[in-house]
Amino acid sequence: MNVVFRKHLEEIITLTDTEFEQILLHFTVKRLKKHQFVIQAGSLIDHEYFVISGLLRSSYTNEDGKVHIIQFAMENWWISDYHALITQTNAIFDIDCLEDVELLSLSSGSKKKLCEEFPIMEHFFRVKTTAGYVGLQQRILSLLNNDAQSRYQKLFAQYPVLFQRVPKALIASYLGVSRETLSRLSNI
Amino acid sequence: MNVVFRKHLEEIITLTDTEFEQILLHFTVKRLKKHQFVIQAGSLIDHEYFVISGLLRSSYTNEDGKVHIIQFAMENWWISDYHALITQTNAIFDIDCLEDVELLSLSSGSKKKLCEEFPIMEHFFRVKTTAGYVGLQQRILSLLNNDAQSRYQKLFAQYPVLFQRVPKALIASYLGVSRETLSRLSNI
Repeated sequence: MNVVFRKHLEEIITLTDTEFEQILLHFTVKRLKKHQFVIQAGSLIDHEYFVISGLLRSSYTNEDGKVHIIQFAMENWWISDYHALITQTNAIFDIDCLEDVELLSLSSGSKKKLCEEFPIMEHFFRVKTTAGYVGLQQRILSLLNNDAQSRYQKLFAQYPVLFQRVPKALIASYLGVSRETLSRLSNI
Repeated sequence: MNVVFRKHLEEIITLTDTEFEQILLHFTVKRLKKHQFVIQAGSLIDHEYFVISGLLRSSYTNEDGKVHIIQFAMENWWISDYHALITQTNAIFDIDCLEDVELLSLSSGSKKKLCEEFPIMEHFFRVKTTAGYVGLQQRILSLLNNDAQSRYQKLFAQYPVLFQRVPKALIASYLGVSRETLSRLSNI
């Protein structure tokens, strides 16, 4: 577990063994079974999560009961309802487990302390968040462009393993297309 | 000019006069006239910009020549082609001025030095980027929800001044709706 997380951090920063051990103290391990919820819409939340193993989904249910998938998260991804986290309001997303998961959980308070104690971790989070920002901007572009085929191809190229681990109906929901359109796209 | 920027930074961090002066040394002032380009798609870029005054637009032109507006930026906003900036590839966005602008320009090298010299600036950028990430996530949600009316209302509530300064056709493009749909929405 620690090896996975250290490797993830060291893609951006360099750490001594002691530093890594001290950083790890700010996290707690959380294990959940398939179908369990990490975050439920409507609840107050105070944590974000790094995925050691397993697969999760973040989703939003609108007033008509239609469910939109905001994000999948598997090994080496971070997930939370960041809007709720930074505005300290109730979660609007559900985050549930599509497989059994092992997570490293970080509270807002611990993140603050961690960044104060290790400016290098502030750097890590800034770089990681910037990458996340760019990823979302690309997704907006693809949605504005209304180009389902390019969305499908990009997702497949970036995360082929998602297509083996996630039911097709959920992939279709993430891409914002119907199940039929997805079938057509996957046959091109 | 300096007052505007200092106030912006001090929404998140606290600075002494000396610190602020040293931080400011990493930026250069850039003035451009309406219609001029700050960034042109296809070019290599190395800067991001803080808007002191004026209004800009970031847009993407797809293969069919259709233009999508990615972002507007006015006073107190940051703008660049962040994908190009972090991956050091050619810009895919055009950024042009809808009004005369005064910008503070920050190169990648200066940002790196600034964050090393002032960890508090690393903190500032992390917090700012997280807020940007959350904003984009909300926009994705609204696009997936295909709810033009809520997109219109949110934009109007957040930035009423945009509707006075930006031509209606550009607002429609930003919202991903036709000019006719926008007229209908603005009459609701």
